[in-house]
Amino acid sequence: MPPSKRPLFGPDRRASVQSEEHAAQEIDALLGNRQKGLNASSNLSGFFREAALFTWALVATIIVIILATILQHRSHPGQPTKPTGKRNLIFMVSDGMGPASLSLTRSFRQYKYDLPIDDVLVLDHHLIGSSRTRSNSSLVTDSAAGATAFSCGKKSYNGAISVLPDHTPCGTVLEAAKRAGYMTGLVVTTSLTDATPACFASHVNIRTEEDLIAEQEIGEHPLGRVVDLMLGGGRCHFLANTTIGSCRADDLDVIKLAKEKYGWNYIDNRHDFDALNPGKGIDNLPLLGLFAGYDFPFEIDRRHVIDTYPSLEEMTKMALDILEEATRNSDQGFFLMVEGSLIDHAGHGNDPAAQVHEVLAYDKAFARVAKFLRKSDIDGVLVASSDHETGGLVTARQLHIDYPQYLWYPSVLANVSYSSEHLARRLRDKINSSPMKGKELKKYIKNKLVQNGLGIWDSTDAEVQLIIDNAQSASYYFADMISRRAQIGWSTHGHSAVDVNIYGTAGSSDLHGNHENTDIGKFLRNYLDVNVKDITEVLRETKVFRTADNGEVGWTGRIPSEQDIESALRYHEESQDNTS
Amino acid sequence: MPPSKRPLFGPDRRASVQSEEHAAQEIDALLGNRQKGLNASSNLSGFFREAALFTWALVATIIVIILATILQHRSHPGQPTKPTGKRNLIFMVSDGMGPASLSLTRSFRQYKYDLPIDDVLVLDHHLIGSSRTRSNSSLVTDSAAGATAFSCGKKSYNGAISVLPDHTPCGTVLEAAKRAGYMTGLVVTTSLTDATPACFASHVNIRTEEDLIAEQEIGEHPLGRVVDLMLGGGRCHFLANTTIGSCRADDLDVIKLAKEKYGWNYIDNRHDFDALNPGKGIDNLPLLGLFAGYDFPFEIDRRHVIDTYPSLEEMTKMALDILEEATRNSDQGFFLMVEGSLIDHAGHGNDPAAQVHEVLAYDKAFARVAKFLRKSDIDGVLVASSDHETGGLVTARQLHIDYPQYLWYPSVLANVSYSSEHLARRLRDKINSSPMKGKELKKYIKNKLVQNGLGIWDSTDAEVQLIIDNAQSASYYFADMISRRAQIGWSTHGHSAVDVNIYGTAGSSDLHGNHENTDIGKFLRNYLDVNVKDITEVLRETKVFRTADNGEVGWTGRIPSEQDIESALRYHEESQDNTS
Repeated sequence: MPPSKRPLFGPDRRASVQSEEHAAQEIDALLGNRQKGLNASSNLSGFFREAALFTWALVATIIVIILATILQHRSHPGQPTKPTGKRNLIFMVSDGMGPASLSLTRSFRQYKYDLPIDDVLVLDHHLIGSSRTRSNSSLVTDSAAGATAFSCGKKSYNGAISVLPDHTPCGTVLEAAKRAGYMTGLVVTTSLTDATPACFASHVNIRTEEDLIAEQEIGEHPLGRVVDLMLGGGRCHFLANTTIGSCRADDLDVIKLAKEKYGWNYIDNRHDFDALNPGKGIDNLPLLGLFAGYDFPFEIDRRHVIDTYPSLEEMTKMALDILEEATRNSDQGFFLMVEGSLIDHAGHGNDPAAQVHEVLAYDKAFARVAKFLRKSDIDGVLVASSDHETGGLVTARQLHIDYPQYLWYPSVLANVSYSSEHLARRLRDKINSSPMKGKELKKYIKNKLVQNGLGIWDSTDAEVQLIIDNAQSASYYFADMISRRAQIGWSTHGHSAVDVNIYGTAGSSDLHGNHENTDIGKFLRNYLDVNVKDITEVLRETKVFRTADNGEVGWTGRIPSEQDIESALRYHEESQDNTS
Repeated sequence: MPPSKRPLFGPDRRASVQSEEHAAQEIDALLGNRQKGLNASSNLSGFFREAALFTWALVATIIVIILATILQHRSHPGQPTKPTGKRNLIFMVSDGMGPASLSLTRSFRQYKYDLPIDDVLVLDHHLIGSSRTRSNSSLVTDSAAGATAFSCGKKSYNGAISVLPDHTPCGTVLEAAKRAGYMTGLVVTTSLTDATPACFASHVNIRTEEDLIAEQEIGEHPLGRVVDLMLGGGRCHFLANTTIGSCRADDLDVIKLAKEKYGWNYIDNRHDFDALNPGKGIDNLPLLGLFAGYDFPFEIDRRHVIDTYPSLEEMTKMALDILEEATRNSDQGFFLMVEGSLIDHAGHGNDPAAQVHEVLAYDKAFARVAKFLRKSDIDGVLVASSDHETGGLVTARQLHIDYPQYLWYPSVLANVSYSSEHLARRLRDKINSSPMKGKELKKYIKNKLVQNGLGIWDSTDAEVQLIIDNAQSASYYFADMISRRAQIGWSTHGHSAVDVNIYGTAGSSDLHGNHENTDIGKFLRNYLDVNVKDITEVLRETKVFRTADNGEVGWTGRIPSEQDIESALRYHEESQDNTS
């Protein structure tokens, strides 16, 4: 009989019955005899009998204890049971990273460093499942609905920042964690007001309301300040529009408000970042670090300006150290969200060279978190997933009507020095600053940008002409020159609906297999054991929050039209070029 | 201290020490008193003491037995431990199914049957990991190298049918299973001589040697006959070239040879298939069922001719029943390979409508196997994966230079009645049989093929003209009309390098996570506990096998050139149109 057909505890019952029968015989043998010989003088044999009985009882008891302990340890083999005490949770989001990004980056890395086939990414060692990404409003989600699934555990419409389809706010895991006494943090390489980080600490009806998001994130929020640490870009939404570098519509100085009303420590450059010293105590929290006006540069470009921008791994390590230090004497641990934000942007730009460096940077940050958890005395889990795939990346591309070759060329990506977006910006700057034309411009593009920047030595005149004719979207043409030569395919400059991977360290077994993205959100709150419903109640009861509001618009901003949502997605794409 | 930091059995030891101390006190209390009062007359209290001791011992013993049994059951929660006795293994291959095929098919099914978001495929409930697919010769594998990784557990070059890069044969799990006393079977919807089935029961240096593969599969093999049951297509390679319907180069009647020399029972039609009755004993094995000259029709077309071709699910159920019956009184179970072959062909044709029906048919066959295992008294495991992705399928497509919409339309696929390949064949037949031209031909295409066949009512004259101008590759143009309207993208008519999913039932935990495709091959042989090395030895020692060989070419056929391999891949694509 196979195990599945056996009644549960069947063998035990049989064994128990046998034991009972056996025991009855023994009772007969032992007690019956004793009663018979009650008056006999065999006290010595009685002593040995009692000693034997005692030994039996003792040995059996010891075995019970051993087995019970083993059983407790094995109830989730290979991973600790859900901790009952202090714990830390790190959730990582690889924005726009689909399954093909992994094979792309893995093979690129093996090629570049001459590694064997089985030398894979750190992520590859932690794959546990996949996530279905569709939103409430479409088969293809955007990052806002995707992150709302993570933060609230609910499906909503594309463009929604932790509000539901009926435009009521939903409590997030970060807010609930804060209320339960956890420290909280957000680390990103895009604007801190972009969809993914926004969904954890703010609630607006349309993602374009980044000014409002910035205000909520620093504490202008029904629950007050819910974040303890924010590192990333998007400084422009925190600066009053009377200041250079602002992109706000109003003259609210959010940084000043943050410092004065909510006690934030504010830094805006790498030097101050490097000066942070978590060993010195917790007095630098709450900490707001805004290292870029808009997005960080792509990793492929940041490599050339490491004195200006910290890497995702560096920011992640800093956040872990600060939060660990800050919770050292606390009963509760911390919740940290880390986003590899620009994988998505490389996908929107269809730039495979930028993409592989973004994924490698994310892999390093992931490895850093996994190492932190291994070394930490506090229980903790790392769970990582993507909100969606971007670009429709395919690691193969048919260039001619002939039957396609079965290959792609990582060597082409290894030759590239800068992102296509960076080179396009240089081209536009060049055209704007010194009006080049004709042969001179062609030569500049061919030599300085295509050869030196892309590592492409066989560009055609037609390709260069296309770039000149489309200077405003030159980045797409640069990227296409790489993709064609590497034989990498793309289907869109937007998102696609493929399932994305879920990664996790020990303790994340509830996410093994294929899941709806909302299951990831539910895992987060369950792991922290926090009450999101109560948060939702409080948020729903709040009608008007900002003093600036005149009562006509609620604190979650205006309700978007269909067209607003389409514009919001387009805006997201267009705003990518605002790296600084 | 977190669990991971606790020394193993730490708590037990502490408990044991406590127990021992406690026990020592008890020994003092019980035996010391006893010795002191040895001559006292408290025999009655002695009786109760012994009874108490006995009860303690008995209860502890019973708990030991209960805990030990629970522990045994829990040692791999949710799945049986690797069986030590009789077992069955079913390995399923979804040829060419990448991650995007799942989101495509899942959403199509939800749309078509008006199902909620969480009503997913049976496959989705069994996701356990993903497989890296690159071959020894390229980042993008073909089905031959892919299936060699499964059958031999070794990487080889594109085009290799269970031979290694040095052109020596490698023993397969099916051959080793047969030698160990298992019954074996192959079920496919393409030719039985195509790469995937070929790799389990034959060895040739290039996949185009399908005539040779047919001979080896029926028993002209160094080990004699290794397969007990084969159901699929590819009859043409088994017929002498003197017979109508043959595609062999020679006049060898492989079916006659199979019957006379190796005792095969042969059937070639649905009527005889339906007449099979596994309940009647094992006398129909070895069984060769060739139901199509080349490939089966796509499932989307087969739906209209179910009297001619059995479905993949029907063939799978039949194979399971026959093999179960045949091994009922055996010490060994069976190994069955089932391939959803035409998912790959739909990918090569970039036909999303054909694809979703193929994946649904495969899902049904998978569900059938899972059900069989649940009901079976014999231990067994189902493992399923793909050899590679085909087509570079993306569930999103940008049609214009404007920023793309975030959506795709399953409704377009639901309107399609026939595969693009079927409609292209009808077009060619029409052109060949009645020379239509101009308006009449346009009307035929627009009404009979595009409207009735594809369910497309808004075709443009330009689209119809393209089909007329490219009648030989009309299927690509039909398929593109669907894909554009559904906003589905493709990057190639060949394969891509994305990781593919691994699915499994309880007992397949060794394949959780991300694996090299060769790990799947190793799992198969390990699960069956069979010796593949011995098979390799025997195969390597065989220099010439076929009597037809003149000694100049070994039994594994000629060594291919680079160009042969390229032709072989192209041939594979071109031969797809030979459905019958």
